[in-house]
Amino acid sequence: MKKNVIVGQSGGPTAVINASLYGVVSEALKRSDSFDKVYGMVNGIEGFLNGHIMDMKPLEESGELELVKTTPGSYLGSCRYKLPEDLNDEVYPALFRRFEEYGIGYFFYIGGNDSMDTVSKLSRYAEGIQSDIRFIGVPKTIDNDLVLTDHTPGFGSAAKYVASTVREVAVDASVYDNKKSVTIVEIMGRHAGWLTAASVLARKFEGDNPVLIYLPETAFDQETFISQVQDALEKVPNLVVCISEGINDGKGTFVCELASDVGVDNFGHKMLTGSGKYLENLVKARLGVKVRSIELNVCQRCSSSMLSAADHQEAIGAGAYGVQAALAGETGKMISFKRIEGDTYKMEYAAEDVNQICNQEKTVPLDWITNNGSDIGQAFIDYALPLVQGSVEVPEENGLPKFAYRK
Amino acid sequence: MKKNVIVGQSGGPTAVINASLYGVVSEALKRSDSFDKVYGMVNGIEGFLNGHIMDMKPLEESGELELVKTTPGSYLGSCRYKLPEDLNDEVYPALFRRFEEYGIGYFFYIGGNDSMDTVSKLSRYAEGIQSDIRFIGVPKTIDNDLVLTDHTPGFGSAAKYVASTVREVAVDASVYDNKKSVTIVEIMGRHAGWLTAASVLARKFEGDNPVLIYLPETAFDQETFISQVQDALEKVPNLVVCISEGINDGKGTFVCELASDVGVDNFGHKMLTGSGKYLENLVKARLGVKVRSIELNVCQRCSSSMLSAADHQEAIGAGAYGVQAALAGETGKMISFKRIEGDTYKMEYAAEDVNQICNQEKTVPLDWITNNGSDIGQAFIDYALPLVQGSVEVPEENGLPKFAYRK
Repeated sequence: MKKNVIVGQSGGPTAVINASLYGVVSEALKRSDSFDKVYGMVNGIEGFLNGHIMDMKPLEESGELELVKTTPGSYLGSCRYKLPEDLNDEVYPALFRRFEEYGIGYFFYIGGNDSMDTVSKLSRYAEGIQSDIRFIGVPKTIDNDLVLTDHTPGFGSAAKYVASTVREVAVDASVYDNKKSVTIVEIMGRHAGWLTAASVLARKFEGDNPVLIYLPETAFDQETFISQVQDALEKVPNLVVCISEGINDGKGTFVCELASDVGVDNFGHKMLTGSGKYLENLVKARLGVKVRSIELNVCQRCSSSMLSAADHQEAIGAGAYGVQAALAGETGKMISFKRIEGDTYKMEYAAEDVNQICNQEKTVPLDWITNNGSDIGQAFIDYALPLVQGSVEVPEENGLPKFAYRK
Repeated sequence: MKKNVIVGQSGGPTAVINASLYGVVSEALKRSDSFDKVYGMVNGIEGFLNGHIMDMKPLEESGELELVKTTPGSYLGSCRYKLPEDLNDEVYPALFRRFEEYGIGYFFYIGGNDSMDTVSKLSRYAEGIQSDIRFIGVPKTIDNDLVLTDHTPGFGSAAKYVASTVREVAVDASVYDNKKSVTIVEIMGRHAGWLTAASVLARKFEGDNPVLIYLPETAFDQETFISQVQDALEKVPNLVVCISEGINDGKGTFVCELASDVGVDNFGHKMLTGSGKYLENLVKARLGVKVRSIELNVCQRCSSSMLSAADHQEAIGAGAYGVQAALAGETGKMISFKRIEGDTYKMEYAAEDVNQICNQEKTVPLDWITNNGSDIGQAFIDYALPLVQGSVEVPEENGLPKFAYRK
C-alpha cells in the first residue's frame, strides 16, 4: 500500500521557503505511482501534533500552487517548537501515532538549524523504534549559516534585497553631497555575517559605498570604528556603513547590549535590537556629523520584490530533490548544495547527514574579511555574485503583488 | 537668439523625480527650434549660485538619459536652500547675473512645497525687474501634500511600495498565527497622512491587515489606541498597525516627542523620530503581547523596486508638459494634475499659480478617515488605487539594479 507524504515549514520566513514547498509538493504529486496523499502540516511540527494538516492536491488543481511559488513567508505557517533532547519523552510516541494515523511514510521539513534538529531527532527516534518513515530536511535560511552546504535557499534573494537596497540608500544619501553624513544600515545576522557581507555587492567601484562593513565574526572595537568612520568621511562625504545586528566585542557582549536590555527566545537565542541606533548616537556624539541609522528589519526576509531567479530555482530544486532522495531510500538527511569548480557557476544537489548539520553554525571565513575587520574581500564577491542573478516576476493584482493564502 | 534651458531638483528624493528630469530634458532637447542649450543645475539653486551646472545633451547622446528615467533619487543632486523672503536681498541679483551669464530663458524646478517657494520668489523677482525668464515648477513629493493638484508625482510609487511592503510584513507576521502579536509600521508623513493611508491598499478583504491605521490629521489618544488594539487582537491575532511618523495629540505634541528630544531642520520643520518605537513599548507595557515596530525609513522614497507605471508615466509627462507650458508663455506656474470625472481613471495636465501652492499643505480630508480615527474609508481607496497601477522594469546589471550616476 502506498504511503502518504507530509511537508512542513519551520523557523523564520524567507522569500523562497514557499518555492521549496512548491518543489516538494509538485514533485510528490508527480510521483503518484509512489505516494498516495500529499499533506501539509499547518504551523509545523507543533500544529501537526495537534492534528492540523491539509491536503495539498486541491492547491494544484485550483492553480493556487503556482501562486505559492512566488509568495513570501511560510504558506503552511511556522512554529518555533523545539523537540525535547530526551528521546524517551512522551511527545515522540505521540508524534508517531499521528504519523500512523495519517499513513505517513515520508516527512519533509523545510527550515534552518533548529528545523534540522527536529529532523535529526525524529529520524533517530524512528531508527530506535525501527520505523521505516523517511525524514528529509530541506534547507532554508537567509542567514546562510548551515554547514555542509555551499549556501542555503533564501540567502540569494535576501542578499539581492540587501545589496540593491543599500545601493538605493547610498543614492538617497548622496543627494546633498556638499554636506558630510553617515548612514548606518543594520542587517540581520546574529552570529553569521553572510547577509551583511552581501552589502558589498552594492559597491560599483573600489572605494564606493558601502565603504565600511562590519560582521559579527570579528571583534568590534568602538574606538577603531570611530577612527575608520572619520578616515572614510575624508574620501566619501556621504558615507554608508553596513553592520550586522550581531556585532560584538569578541568577548560575548553585543554592541546593542551596551544600549538596552535584551530578552532570550525559547531556543535560548539572545533577542537583539538596536546596534545601528547605538552607533548612530555614538557617531553623532563623537564626530558631530549628520547621522541616521536604518534597520532593514523583516523586509529583508519577506520581500518578494527582489527575488533572485538563481535562488528561486534552487529553492524549488532542493524541494524536488528531497522527494527524489527519500524515494531513493535516504532518511536523516538534509539536501545540500555542492558548487562545481569552474569558470561559470554550476551547482549540484546532494544529501548530507542531518546530525552533522543541526545546531552548528557556519560563519564567514575570517580571511574573507579584510581591512582590519571593516571590509569584505573579493573571495566573498566571487562566492555571492552568482546567487543573486536574475529576477522573478511576481503576479500583480490591482497594482499590488498577488500572494497565496491558506484558507 | 535662442535662449537656454536650465532644470534643477530640490528637496528629498523620490523614486520618480528623475523621471520628471527626463521629461523636461528630453522634451527640451526635442525643441531645438526653440531652445539652444539644456543645462542641469547641480545641487539645486544653491549649486547654481556657485556656478555648478552641466550640459544635458551628452547624456542623451550616450544613452545615459534612458537610465536616468528609472534611477531613484536626485540625479542632479538636491539642496535645502531657502531663498530669503526679502526680494531686496543681494542673492536675487546674484542669481539673475548667473541666469544672464548662462543665457537662461527657461527655468524648471522639480520639487515639493519648499521648491515651489523658490519658483514663486524667482518669478516675483523677475516680474519686479521685468525679466522675461520663465519659471516653472514641476511637482514632486511622496507626501502628496501640494494643493491645487489631484496628486503629485512620487506619491504613486511610494504608495505602491508602502502597500506592498505592508502586505509582505503582514505575511511575515502571520506565520506564527497561534500567538498574539502586534506589528507597528511607521510610515513617512509629518503633517499629511496620504502615504500612511496608502497602507489600506494592502488589505485584501474587510477586517484584513492592516486593521488599524492612524494619520496625523486626527488627534491621537493613547488610551483609545490601546483599547482599539486590544479589541482588534480579539479578531486578528497577528495584528498589523500602520502609523504616520507625525501622529500627534491634536494640540501640537507629536507622539515621538513623548519619547525623545527633537531638533528642527533649516525650514523650521520638527525632525521626527520614533513614534513607532514609543508605541511598541507602550503596547508591550500595557497589553503584554509580543510587539515589534518597523520604520519603513528612506526605502519608501528611494526604492526602485516598486515603481508604479502610472506614476512613472505621469512624472515624465509633468516634466514634458512644463516645457510646453513655458513655451506657451507661462511663468510663475506649477504643473498640476486634474482628474477627469468618470468610471475609468483619466488625468490631464494644467498649470496653476505657484504662489497659491508654495508653503501650503494639503492633508487627507477628514471624512476619508473613519472608525474614530483608526481607519481609512473607500473614498481614499478609490482615489489612490489608479495611482499604483502597473510596474516598470528597471535594468539590471550583474544581478542588481543599474542606475545612472552624475560623473
